[in-house]
Amino acid sequence: MTQNAENFASAVAAAHPELLQRLHAAVGDAGLVLDPEAQAPYLRDWLGKWQGRAPVVVRPRDTAQTAAVMAICHETHTPVVTQGGNTGMSGGATPDGSGAQLVLSTARMNTIREVDPLNNSLTVEAGVLLAQVHAAAAEAGRFFPLSLGSEGSCTIGGNLATNAGGIAVLRYGNMRDLVLGVEAVLPDGRVWHGLRALRKDNTGYDLRHLFIGSEGTLGVITAAVLKLYPQPTARATAWVGAGDIQSLVSLQAQLRSRCGERLVAFEMMSQASLALVLKHVTATRAPLQGEHAYHALVELADTRAEGLPDLLEQSLGAALEEGLVQDVAICASTAQAHALWKLREGISQAQVRAGKAVKHDIALPISAIAGFVADADAALRALLPGVRIVNFGHLGDGNLHYNVLLPLDTPYAEYAAHTATLNREVHDRVHALGGSISAEHGIGQLRRDELPRYKSALEFELMMRIKQALDPNQIMNPGKLL
Amino acid sequence: MTQNAENFASAVAAAHPELLQRLHAAVGDAGLVLDPEAQAPYLRDWLGKWQGRAPVVVRPRDTAQTAAVMAICHETHTPVVTQGGNTGMSGGATPDGSGAQLVLSTARMNTIREVDPLNNSLTVEAGVLLAQVHAAAAEAGRFFPLSLGSEGSCTIGGNLATNAGGIAVLRYGNMRDLVLGVEAVLPDGRVWHGLRALRKDNTGYDLRHLFIGSEGTLGVITAAVLKLYPQPTARATAWVGAGDIQSLVSLQAQLRSRCGERLVAFEMMSQASLALVLKHVTATRAPLQGEHAYHALVELADTRAEGLPDLLEQSLGAALEEGLVQDVAICASTAQAHALWKLREGISQAQVRAGKAVKHDIALPISAIAGFVADADAALRALLPGVRIVNFGHLGDGNLHYNVLLPLDTPYAEYAAHTATLNREVHDRVHALGGSISAEHGIGQLRRDELPRYKSALEFELMMRIKQALDPNQIMNPGKLL
Repeated sequence: MTQNAENFASAVAAAHPELLQRLHAAVGDAGLVLDPEAQAPYLRDWLGKWQGRAPVVVRPRDTAQTAAVMAICHETHTPVVTQGGNTGMSGGATPDGSGAQLVLSTARMNTIREVDPLNNSLTVEAGVLLAQVHAAAAEAGRFFPLSLGSEGSCTIGGNLATNAGGIAVLRYGNMRDLVLGVEAVLPDGRVWHGLRALRKDNTGYDLRHLFIGSEGTLGVITAAVLKLYPQPTARATAWVGAGDIQSLVSLQAQLRSRCGERLVAFEMMSQASLALVLKHVTATRAPLQGEHAYHALVELADTRAEGLPDLLEQSLGAALEEGLVQDVAICASTAQAHALWKLREGISQAQVRAGKAVKHDIALPISAIAGFVADADAALRALLPGVRIVNFGHLGDGNLHYNVLLPLDTPYAEYAAHTATLNREVHDRVHALGGSISAEHGIGQLRRDELPRYKSALEFELMMRIKQALDPNQIMNPGKLL
Repeated sequence: MTQNAENFASAVAAAHPELLQRLHAAVGDAGLVLDPEAQAPYLRDWLGKWQGRAPVVVRPRDTAQTAAVMAICHETHTPVVTQGGNTGMSGGATPDGSGAQLVLSTARMNTIREVDPLNNSLTVEAGVLLAQVHAAAAEAGRFFPLSLGSEGSCTIGGNLATNAGGIAVLRYGNMRDLVLGVEAVLPDGRVWHGLRALRKDNTGYDLRHLFIGSEGTLGVITAAVLKLYPQPTARATAWVGAGDIQSLVSLQAQLRSRCGERLVAFEMMSQASLALVLKHVTATRAPLQGEHAYHALVELADTRAEGLPDLLEQSLGAALEEGLVQDVAICASTAQAHALWKLREGISQAQVRAGKAVKHDIALPISAIAGFVADADAALRALLPGVRIVNFGHLGDGNLHYNVLLPLDTPYAEYAAHTATLNREVHDRVHALGGSISAEHGIGQLRRDELPRYKSALEFELMMRIKQALDPNQIMNPGKLL
């Protein structure tokens, strides 16, 4: 231990008699992070929006150690914040400022326990990175479809706790749809062995789906059995420009009917979003001549290459002919497809350079999107004249990242005030249309105060009753979600 | 009211002061079934295995009436058995013999509330028949995939309560995978409005998945938003014969890799199962020359017809060439495909004529199937020499209907004793391999006594805590599942 860590450890030990000693007995030197400098990355979310404190960061190496840690926390009533790759968008894995919340990092539980190609399944521990799962599946000639920008650093445990979404939901569903079984340590340290590798199992309440998406408030997910899929061996990618968003909604429906499950991506962005990327991200260029109010990146994938480019060409050709879209560019090479994806993926980066973003991660019934956008665009422009709206997202899932850019030099107080106002304007409209104020990012700290406005009192009560049933001492991730 | 019904009503009224009167006020004449003859079909499961009694059968016409009924039952502590199409396999919708359990039939809640082709969703009430959903989807140019033998009489509410499976799970998942939102009346009569039509929604615990598969023990599902899919416009069907079951397991994996999601059915049956059908079901004939230890019905489907028959022929041709399968017959017409499906669907009927069946609805990791079958076959044959094993099922889901036929004239007592012994032999083996003792039929009354042997005490405790949290008075479907 460094002097620094030792000083800190004594302070912790003074504040938490026995806790440190017992944790040390459970996880050893390698499982405790005491040095404030080493702790720092665990106490702050990667966006730098939330900064917390913790008596100690614990890094158990397996389920048994996690169970031992939780048993200690149960007995000592120590609150626990579970953290995976710390790539969340809503502050769900950052402790609060009290200094009382222990951080439990799953990073050392990073073993791929089993790959079963015949059963199309794979058993992994919570700390395994999403990209490692992709690689292990590919090595077995299979495919794990969840795809996120952070896949090189986010963990499966975090993906499960937040029910991660991303760009492959249209075809494959959210994280919860990709899971056969879950292993979790309960708040009292007992282990629920729910690692089933079955496609069918009707023997009682589905506890798996209760833990998935619960943002660390019901227990610690330590491992999961994931579904594997046939590996698509061919892709066909195109860019389309349209005069309005409703045309893209119709195109999406048409492509689904024509191409079936080959349609794996339908990503939308407004002209303003594209313009930001072209301005702020190097080595990008406009995929089409002229301006179009809305753009989409469309991708088909299949286990068979034959006919795939033709199918895309015919389908988009038909849409062009009937005037549904204004222009189309079909990729002739993988390099061209990468260039198109770079435009889509560059939006976040461009946004950071262009202004202070007030972000919304909303979902709507797809049929309600065009009406929502027209209405919200007009309302926000009336509210804040000259405002820049950066509207993009996973149109095929009804999921819009409907962001609003304020000038870079907006003072913080003004930004905060505008954020509250804009959130209200956007979320009230989303709610009225039966939408969700968090499509894929979760509630965490970010939306916690807003949630009661949009969840019915009854649903809130049911969630609280379940929380009470599973975590009666309320030690799991206090201050998040509920 | 007939004299008979009046007499019965007075008896009920005497036994349950106020109950009948209050229920009548809630649902009117049309909502009460009092006549014992009219009640009879609700009190006995369709297999005739379970016979119960009830003070009254209530048929609310909508969610509001259901809520009113539940409020009355809550106040009077009246136990409630919810019943859909009464097509279950496990007695989950039949009241017990106490005469205290009210039957709540969803049959009159049979409105399709909305079809939204752009959002690929459909909102239906619990009493709508599965076949009606198929028709409504097709009318909108879409497809609802759940497919069961009982689709003409089972209801969506029952499909949800039991998380129905069937023959399309391989490609589309179980009922729970086909649902976006659920509306349910809680045990105290309040309505949870969870009818979301969203593909992404990360705003708290997933209550939807808690109600799905809970077999009426947590509340009454009154409506749901279902996912729609692109309509497959082409199908290609074949029959294959193989020397052992492991070859079919390998073939299944090979076809998935080659054909991707086009593989929509992979149904297996042993030679003994096929022989029973050929003997007992009229107008059937063997699809292949000679005998093969195991057979499979394979079907591809796609939104595009081009290349589909070729793909099936090439894929099965390759399997034939490498000796994985012994013989193949590819259908040249829809009539031929129907004839093959008739063989698969005829097994249940043939079984009834051939003997008294001790049934098992098990799931295993697909990679464990061949080992299980070899082991279980040998064990059962040693236990009951000469026994006939009727092994068939959804091989692609790892779901076997591993049934054992006893002679038709087996006395009931002997049948019951053999049932207990065979269940134990089969289920212990399934459990040891990480399998499920109820893949798609649920627990109901049938497997309730067996469940504690195969669920961990911890999982049982968690289920009981959730039950307690949602149904503290324990009035929802007592004696089922838990």
